[in-house]
Order: sequence, then structure tokens, then C-alpha cells
Amino acid sequence: MKIRAGVLGATGAVGQRFVQLLESHPWFELVALAASERSAGKRYGDACAWKLDAPMPAAARELLVQPLEPRLECDVVFSALDAAVAGPAEESFAAAGYAVLSNSRNHRMDADVPLLVPEVNPDHAALIPAQRRNRGWRGFIATNPNCSTATLVLALAPLERRFGLKAVAVTTLQAVSGAGYPGLPSLDILGNVVPYIAGEEEKIERETKKILGTLAADRIAPHPVTVSAQTTRVPVVDGHTAAVFVTLGSDPGPEAVCEALASYRSVPQERGLPSAPAHPTVVVAGEDRPQPRLDIGVERGMASVIGRVRRCDVMGYKFIVLGHNTIRGAAGAALLNAELLQAQGLLQR
Amino acid sequence: MKIRAGVLGATGAVGQRFVQLLESHPWFELVALAASERSAGKRYGDACAWKLDAPMPAAARELLVQPLEPRLECDVVFSALDAAVAGPAEESFAAAGYAVLSNSRNHRMDADVPLLVPEVNPDHAALIPAQRRNRGWRGFIATNPNCSTATLVLALAPLERRFGLKAVAVTTLQAVSGAGYPGLPSLDILGNVVPYIAGEEEKIERETKKILGTLAADRIAPHPVTVSAQTTRVPVVDGHTAAVFVTLGSDPGPEAVCEALASYRSVPQERGLPSAPAHPTVVVAGEDRPQPRLDIGVERGMASVIGRVRRCDVMGYKFIVLGHNTIRGAAGAALLNAELLQAQGLLQR
Amino acid sequence: MKIRAGVLGATGAVGQRFVQLLESHPWFELVALAASERSAGKRYGDACAWKLDAPMPAAARELLVQPLEPRLECDVVFSALDAAVAGPAEESFAAAGYAVLSNSRNHRMDADVPLLVPEVNPDHAALIPAQRRNRGWRGFIATNPNCSTATLVLALAPLERRFGLKAVAVTTLQAVSGAGYPGLPSLDILGNVVPYIAGEEEKIERETKKILGTLAADRIAPHPVTVSAQTTRVPVVDGHTAAVFVTLGSDPGPEAVCEALASYRSVPQERGLPSAPAHPTVVVAGEDRPQPRLDIGVERGMASVIGRVRRCDVMGYKFIVLGHNTIRGAAGAALLNAELLQAQGLLQR
Amino acid sequence: MKIRAGVLGATGAVGQRFVQLLESHPWFELVALAASERSAGKRYGDACAWKLDAPMPAAARELLVQPLEPRLECDVVFSALDAAVAGPAEESFAAAGYAVLSNSRNHRMDADVPLLVPEVNPDHAALIPAQRRNRGWRGFIATNPNCSTATLVLALAPLERRFGLKAVAVTTLQAVSGAGYPGLPSLDILGNVVPYIAGEEEKIERETKKILGTLAADRIAPHPVTVSAQTTRVPVVDGHTAAVFVTLGSDPGPEAVCEALASYRSVPQERGLPSAPAHPTVVVAGEDRPQPRLDIGVERGMASVIGRVRRCDVMGYKFIVLGHNTIRGAAGAALLNAELLQAQGLLQR
Repeated sequence: MKIRAGVLGATGAVGQRFVQLLESHPWFELVALAASERSAGKRYGDACAWKLDAPMPAAARELLVQPLEPRLECDVVFSALDAAVAGPAEESFAAAGYAVLSNSRNHRMDADVPLLVPEVNPDHAALIPAQRRNRGWRGFIATNPNCSTATLVLALAPLERRFGLKAVAVTTLQAVSGAGYPGLPSLDILGNVVPYIAGEEEKIERETKKILGTLAADRIAPHPVTVSAQTTRVPVVDGHTAAVFVTLGSDPGPEAVCEALASYRSVPQERGLPSAPAHPTVVVAGEDRPQPRLDIGVERGMASVIGRVRRCDVMGYKFIVLGHNTIRGAAGAALLNAELLQAQGLLQR
Repeated sequence: MKIRAGVLGATGAVGQRFVQLLESHPWFELVALAASERSAGKRYGDACAWKLDAPMPAAARELLVQPLEPRLECDVVFSALDAAVAGPAEESFAAAGYAVLSNSRNHRMDADVPLLVPEVNPDHAALIPAQRRNRGWRGFIATNPNCSTATLVLALAPLERRFGLKAVAVTTLQAVSGAGYPGLPSLDILGNVVPYIAGEEEKIERETKKILGTLAADRIAPHPVTVSAQTTRVPVVDGHTAAVFVTLGSDPGPEAVCEALASYRSVPQERGLPSAPAHPTVVVAGEDRPQPRLDIGVERGMASVIGRVRRCDVMGYKFIVLGHNTIRGAAGAALLNAELLQAQGLLQR
Repeated sequence: MKIRAGVLGATGAVGQRFVQLLESHPWFELVALAASERSAGKRYGDACAWKLDAPMPAAARELLVQPLEPRLECDVVFSALDAAVAGPAEESFAAAGYAVLSNSRNHRMDADVPLLVPEVNPDHAALIPAQRRNRGWRGFIATNPNCSTATLVLALAPLERRFGLKAVAVTTLQAVSGAGYPGLPSLDILGNVVPYIAGEEEKIERETKKILGTLAADRIAPHPVTVSAQTTRVPVVDGHTAAVFVTLGSDPGPEAVCEALASYRSVPQERGLPSAPAHPTVVVAGEDRPQPRLDIGVERGMASVIGRVRRCDVMGYKFIVLGHNTIRGAAGAALLNAELLQAQGLLQR
Repeated sequence: MKIRAGVLGATGAVGQRFVQLLESHPWFELVALAASERSAGKRYGDACAWKLDAPMPAAARELLVQPLEPRLECDVVFSALDAAVAGPAEESFAAAGYAVLSNSRNHRMDADVPLLVPEVNPDHAALIPAQRRNRGWRGFIATNPNCSTATLVLALAPLERRFGLKAVAVTTLQAVSGAGYPGLPSLDILGNVVPYIAGEEEKIERETKKILGTLAADRIAPHPVTVSAQTTRVPVVDGHTAAVFVTLGSDPGPEAVCEALASYRSVPQERGLPSAPAHPTVVVAGEDRPQPRLDIGVERGMASVIGRVRRCDVMGYKFIVLGHNTIRGAAGAALLNAELLQAQGLLQR
């Protein structure tokens, strides 16, 4: 018996990824789709301007899109809602008893909401019982980080564990799919770089510290690492690249840094979660790698792909990291969170 | 009477910019073009696959391309030669009495060759007499920096002068015209980011320190600033963007940083050199600026265009800077150097 | 004394081109800008997200954007209005006495409205007195064609005049600026081709026949040429390319076809209209030309640039034509129309 | 027991596709790789700059690249050789007894060499015995068409069969991967259209007529259809789009044209060849389809994807067709040819 799953905000770019990743999932069965009033009442195949390069799953095509109300016939909902509506909508689902796995930013920084990366802070899931008590909810909300944070923090965690982590300065080169659909006008990005993404730098700076933070007495103490980000948009469809400068707690040498990254395994790998990559952090050879076009498919988009690890006179070390922004950075992240919670016995009421 | 000028490597991407910028120059007259054996003996209009978006100047079209030998009927040569041939070729011209204004990397770090940015280190031109003595040359070589360094160091100089400069960590997003023609294969860069440019990071790190260095007793003492670079190629035609993290000698606040940048003037502005921008460092408004497509034409490509100056928890300050890589980063830089030397009385024998 | 001009829809992509082209125009002075309610009341510099690569003219920056009502202090208005609002708005201006030079599609096919290309059908301006009588207007509306038609018909006219014209089958590769701003979402066009532009094929087919048609007794008899179009969008910023197959009334050979195109001159050239290109149809050498990036600036964007004229076994002849879609295909076309009407004494009341 | 297969020109763009498509093929086992002298003697993993977005198959990585001499330990060779070397190299392999399935243009128009599209002219394989006799070869050469022809002719065949075919005028918008690697310089194609591909138009015109031709007495009588092509390059990575104007032998109406395309099946489908698409010609819904980014994966790149079938005043009908240029247009085409010949008993000696 599979767990019945729904998708909130099913017609958008991230919603489409949820629909795609849930097709023939071993644990979850996609049974319900919800979206804004404009789409509600239509067949998904008619309501949704599908923008992925593999065809829409046939089963999803026939599902009726429902309104954003907590009356879906399912147990778990994956939320790809716009921040403009996600706040109260997700709360109403959680109050009504649904497990809400949210990709939206609204509740990520709430003190009693876990911001989970299963390979990094699986213990933060322990906030969920407290959240239910605090809010009197039968269900709960668990969130995954912003797309850039997801890729970055996965690459930082092995370093933090092994060597300690003092400071991070990062510049991102982000793909247009990260802005959703319609997202950026083509006139703004064709042959261009836009050196600004609203709210993104603050998200990277805050979320990284929470994810790497320590749980004690139902609270997360943020990690003391200092983080500074500059975020840019580039004419790439899928795949966020980041150039990272980092100061570690010791000076282990580039080989040891690579070894720590290449050998990292954590709870999702040990538990064999269905969406877990075999290697969450992959070190790629080649002095000009990783590249979005060549490396975005590594581990089906669920890994951070790292290259060019080397010394830096200013910060200590520097490297490049690439991640799939709508898989590991969004829908795949929430799905892996759901698998983690199921393995921990926290998913179902 | 104009000064007679030639271009070495006239058929390549930077050579074409020299030809374009020398059209109707008030001080120089383009009278000679030289290139590799393949092109020598042809009309320039036939030998050159012109790739600029304005048409080839009519006068240049009829010039005969000559071999790379120091028998050109001119006084000054602008060198856009490939590094593979620039070393001895430029030396032979300098020995024969030509003023060689070189964009090539070969002699930039030679102890007795000035690496000039007229707004930053015009006094370094004083190396030229020593160079002539050392080498027994009637002419000389003066160089301009690498395209990324050119943009960066112009933005750093006002900060170094006003506040002191301790450390710089920079990530570049560089245009394909910086790789010349044919340069990058389209399959490598369409919809992609390549996080590596051979030799570029070392050039930025070394050249910045020499340009900001101090001349004493016919030697340059490099500036003690620590510089670390990560360089990437993005699908943009013209315009290198850089995301800069910087530690200053004091903490003046972002407004004072902007003011130092916006008000900067130097020798080229004071002397009214023909190619000098009115403002070498332009601070652009708008939280999503500068952008290559919108800002590449500021000051006819001769300024560093700066935006998003703000505090950084890791390094102190961070900002975005954009420059035109084949104008201020190459041909325009060498031309402004020639104008500076002429104003200093050093150009002609 | 210059003629006072206004721009309707001044904040959009074509409106910005009008503002740019009217800067320092010898006959017109830009004195009024009007736009939708959202912009009205603001300074143009604040209301307009300027997307052209040269800076906004300083004078325009300070103008106050006014509502779309016929109370502007000027004689001529250039309309870049959206089709959704252009119909009644342009009529109200014409009724109130303004000369309306419209780039919008709404009135192009009206029987008493000239659809003008000054090099092709300057005599169609004679519809204007009839239009005023019919509609009881003190002013009038004159239109220019759709951006693709503009480029195509300019290349067809010399052939029609010299050899006769029986059939045209054309496939366009159109730039994204033709869709205005925000226009196409970047996810739809990055690394992609969209083989459909709503309404575009019908416009090309109908407008070409009207422009090449014959005026008699205050009516235009459409030209009997058969026209069939397929229109596509490609990831290019500015410049519509078209691959044209054409059946002429005779078989003059490719050299004669080229000669007819290269030697074409018409009324705007004879009258020396300020925006007229010296050569409205330019035949470019090079078997791989014209190209948007290299040839879009020919004749400041006011010419159709033609290449690869050769025989075709199916239709007789085939060639490539390129035009600047927001200059000759939009704002520059309307401006040249205004200059023609002024030269004909039809512009002012 | 699988048939042992080799790839000639294994390191290029099409050679890489062969290696990818032969991984875990049910009938063929990739056992040998050959390439130019520069690569010979190296491991494939070292010799080849892999440019596909899925990783290099592990087995291929370890194979030693051999010289282009007919001493490979295999029965069939797939040739992705450059036209500069393919002519004599393929002949030497065929003379030595290999079945040569060639993607190169050199022998396509030879009178005794079949130019095969298994869904269109499987009977042309009967040229092979005559070819062996003529040339005294133990092996043979069979070719597949040029990438654009492959997509086009697959869409034309169902129409030719059902309605007759009189004339075709086609404009292509071709992807950069069709030019191989390094292929087009990025400066030539970023944000640009190049309206010329050397030799391509002639190939489309000639090859289409041969493929649709009739076999009689060991000769192919070309089909009398008139074909005219204009070919352009656009900034797309994979997927050639074509806008087709066509005159049929009758006027069946657009619905009947669509039905003929959607229902087409032929020998590869009947025989169940492993690489055969279920539907060789897929009619896609949506007025703005097919698009490279959304439809390139239809039938794993082995179908012609057709949309926008409608009447045309000039030629009768017009439509858009898309095909994967390195799969159905190159490596996949040769592989399907090999499967056809194996099913016909012609592959092995």
C-alpha cells in the first residue's frame, strides 16, 4: 500500500517536477493535484503548460486539478506554492492533519519548523512533535532550503564535519528555471547576466546557518559560520553553479578536502532512501568542470557536483559546485525529506 | 601631423578593435597592418573575417597586410598578437625603434616593462628609459593588463587610494569575445557555464599587485594586497562581469565607498586624453545593475561600471563591476596607454 | 520651428525606440509622452524600464508621462500602443486633430487608412483626405506594417516593379524584441525555436498585398500576388531574418535580380527625408550573410539587407533578407512615414 | 551471441552518439573503436572529450582506440568519419569484408550504394549484392542521409505514398551539434542566425530524390519531385527544425494529411527492430509545436515530430517538422539501417 500524495501548486515549474518525480515512486502514489482558482476544475493535461523535456506522465494528465483547500484525499502534500499564497495555505493543510513537505520560503525560518537536508541535519526532524504541540496541529510542515542553499550546504557539510567551518563567500550563477514560469523575460537574459535575484542572498546566508545549526531543547542554535553571497542569473536553463571561497577550521590540504567530499555518506545513503543519491557530493575530474550542460544529470540531479578544489590566498580554499535547481534544489529535496520522515516514523499520523 | 600607427595581429578579434578605434583618431593615423604569414600580402578587407557589429572602416579595407617584421612605415605599433608569437616579435619591433603598445601577456610581468593603467599607475611609465638602457633598445614595450584585471583594478584603485586595500576575492563571468576568434566552440558555451579559463586567475592575481605597486629606483614593489580569483565563461558576447568581495584598510561605510568610486578622476581626465572616459569608474543605480546588455556602452566601453556596493559579513564590502573586455580590457587600454605616453613625452623617439 | 511630437505607449519596447529616434531629430521635437494609467503622472525616467543598449536621452528622462487622452500639447503623435487599447485611443486622437502615425495593427487594414512604406507606396497617402471626410476627423491615422512585413515588402518592391511578382513563400526567424517586454518567457526561447507567432502569418500575407496594391478612386486594390508565410521565434535580441522563395513575372537571372535590389531608390531617397536610408535595399556580399549580429546596423537599421540571391527549382528564385524589427519594422517606419507626409504637405492641419 | 561492432571516428560528436546508442544494444556489442592517429593508442576515456549530457558508458571508457585500418576484431563498423577521410577509409573496410554503416556523405550518391531510411526505402538494400559484385568487395557500404534530409524525408514519405508528391520548398533551422565539434565558433552563433551551411542545401535536394526513388534493375531512378532548400544555423544545441511548403498530387485536406502522418508504419515497426520508434512520424498537438526543447525526446529521438499542418495558398500545404539531428539524423539512423539489414539477412557475410 503506497502513501497517497498530493501536490500543491501543481501547474508551476516546481509543481511539474513533483509530478514527474512521483511517477512510479516506490513509496508514494500521486493521487491529488491542487492549484490556484484559474486551474481548478480542469484536467491537469489541459490546465498545465508543461515545460519539462520529458512528456507529462499519462496518469497525471487525467487528474482533475482541485482548489487549494485541505480536502484532498491524501496523506502527504508536496507544496510548490508561490510565496504569495503558501503561508496560510500550508498552515491550513498542516492544521487539518496533512504532512506538508514545502519548497516555499514562508516557513523555513520559523523556530519550530525544520529546514531539512537529509544528509546534513536529519536530527532536526525532531522539531516536528514540538511544532504540533505549539500550534495544536494534527499535521505539520517540514521545509527544504532555497535552491542555491541546497547545493551549497550539501558541499559545506562534509567540510564542516571534518575540518570545521568559519566563513563562506559565494557567488552564484543561477539558471532561469529557478525563477519559475514565466519568470525572467527573454529580453532580460538572452546574451546577458543579471547580477541580482531578489531575496536570494539573504536566504543563502540565513538558511545555511540554520541547516548547519545544532538542535537542543526543541530549538536550533544557528551555526556560527559567517556567510556572504552574491547571486546572479545567467542564460542557462537548468543548473545553478556557485564559485565558493571558504575558510575551514584547519588547513588539511586540497587532497584531504576532496577526500572528505568524495567519501561523504549520511543517513539517506545508510537507510537506502529511494531518492537518495549513492554519493551526495561528487567530486568531478577535469579542470573545467562541473558544467551545467555536462554534469547536471549526475546522480539524477540529486548530488552536489564539485570541481576545482584548490587553495585560496584570501580565504584558504576555493572550489566550484553545481546542483540541479529544480531537482535537488526543489522538488527532489522535498521528496527526499518525505522519505526521511517516513523512515523515521514521523510522516504518518 | 598625426603619429603614424600600425597594428600587429590585425586580423584577430582585438586587432579588429584597434582598427576600429584608430579610425579618425585625433592623434594617430592607421597606416600599417601586419599579421601572420597566412594573411600577409592580401588586402585587409580580404584577409580579415570582420566580426564587429559596425562595418570595417573603408580606409583599412584597402591596406595591404604586411608580414610581422619591423619594417612597417610607422612610429607606434599596437600589438594584438597571440601569446604564441608575441614574445620575440614585440622585442624585435622595440629593438628596431618602435613604441610597442602591447595587449599580449608575454612581457607584462617583466621587471622593466610597465603594466599601465593610466588612471592608476601613470608613474610606472618611468620604467621605459631603464628598459631601453637595460636592453639596448631604441624603442620600448609598454603593456596593458589582461581584460579582467583591467576592469577590476580600475574599480580597486579609488578604494586603495582612499581607504587602503587588504584583500580581494573575485569571481568573474566573462564574455566569449575574450577568447578571441574562433575561441570557444559553440557546443561548449550555448546555455552553459564553463568555470575555468586557462591562466586567467593567475593573471588577475599577479597583475593587480603589480599595477597597484610602488615604483622606486626603477623597480616596482608589488602591492601587499592578497588577491584570489575564480574565473568563468558565460554565454555573453561582450562584457566581463565580476562579483567582488573586498577588505579595505578602514570601514568607511557603503556611501563613502560609492562616493570614492563616483568621484574618481586621474591623469587621463586631467590631461584630457582623447580616449579617456569622463568618469573612469561609474556607479550605476538600480539594484540589478550593471548588466552587459544595458551597460556595456557606458563611456564608450572605457569605464568600469559598478553597482550593488554593500557590506559583506565575511570580507567587509562586496559589489559588482562590469567592463568592456575588448575595449577597456584590450584595444582601448593600449590606445589610452599610447595617449598617456605621448602626453608624457615618452612616445616618440 | 520644429513640429511638436508625442509618443503614445512610450514606456514599451517600441515606445522606447520612438523616444530614442526622436532625440535630436531635425524636423520633430519630442515634447509629450503618454502611457497607461500605471505610468501616468510619473517622470519618464522613473516610469520606464529602459531596455535599449544606449542610455535614455536626458531630455526624455524629465518629461512627465501623461494619460492616453487627446490633450497632449503637440501636433503629431507616434503610437506604439498595444493592440488591446490602440483602436479607440488612436481614433480619439485623430478625431481631435492629431496626425497619428501608428505602429499598431488595429487600423492597418481599414479601407481608408494608408498602410505606408515610403519607398513602396508613397501615393497611398492620398487616402488621408478621404479618411478625414469619411470619418469627420480633423486629424488622421496613417500606419506602418508589421515588423516582418516591413522587411519583406521592401525587398519585394524592386522585384515587383522590374519583373512582376506572382508568388511568395517565406519563413521568418524573428527576434524576441518583436514580442515587446516582457514578451517571451526566457524558458520558452533559450536554446529553442518556437515555430509560431500569433497572428503574424496572416499579417504578412494580407499587409503585403495591400502595400503592393494599386490606389484608384480612394480605394486600394490589393496586389494579386499569392503570399504564404511560416513564422518562428529564435533566440536573437534584435533583427528578423526571412528565407524567401519567390516567383517573378519573368526569369531575369540572379544578377539582374541583385542589380534591381542594389540600385533601388524611391521617393524618400529623392526627397532626402532625414530618416531615409541611402539604400533602402542593400545586397550584402558573403555566402553566409546577412546575419543579425553583423548586419543589423546597416543603414542605421533602416534598410532591408539581402543576401544569397539564387535560383530555386520550385519557385524560381530564393534569397535571405534581414531587417531591424524595432527600427525599420516599427518606430523608424512610423517616423519615416511622418517625414513623407510632411514632405507631401499632409502632416500639418 | 551478439554481433561484434566497431565505430570509426569514435571520438567526434556523432561517434560519441554511436558509443552511447550501442551501450546495452540487444543485437550488437561494441568491441572496437577507431579514430585518427592523434587518438589511436589511448584509452577512449582519455582520448575523447565527451560532450553528451549522459556520462560515457563505463565499458567504452576502457577500450583502446585503434588506428583507422581494417584490422578491427568485429563484423560491422559504424562510420562517423569526417568527409575528408571517409571515402577511402570506408572503402578499405568494405573491401576487407566489413559491413560499413556510414553516416558520411562520401558514398551516399554512388549509384550502387543504398541511401537507406528503413521506413521509406528498405527495398533499396537490394543494391548491396550488386555493389559487392561491381567492386569485388567481401563487405559493403550502406549509408544514411544527411541529418536534415533524414527528418524531412521521413515526413514526406507518408504523403508521397498516400497522395503523391510534386514539389517541396523547405527552410531549416539547424542545431549547432550538427556541425560536430568544435564546429561553429561561439562568436558566430550566440544570439545570431547564420543563413548558410556549406553543401547542405544540395544534399537535401539530391538525397531526398534518391531516397524516394524507385529501384529497378540494380539502379535507383530518382523521384521526380522538385526540392528546394534554404538552410540556416540557429543557437540550439540539439534538434533541427524545418518549415516545409509542399505540393501534393491531390488535395486531401489538412485532416487527411495529419491522418496519413499519424498512422504511418513501415518495415521497422512491423519487424520490431530494436531501435525503431513505435511511430516514425508523430503529429504533435499545440499550435506552437514542435519545439526542440520540449519535443526532441519524442520516441527517444528516432521520430520526425510534425506540427502546424495547414493549407498554403502558394504550394498547397505547409507544416513544421523537428528531428534529433545526431540520433535520427546520424547515429540512430545508421544503427537502424544495421538492424534492417540484419533482419533482411544482408548484414553478415
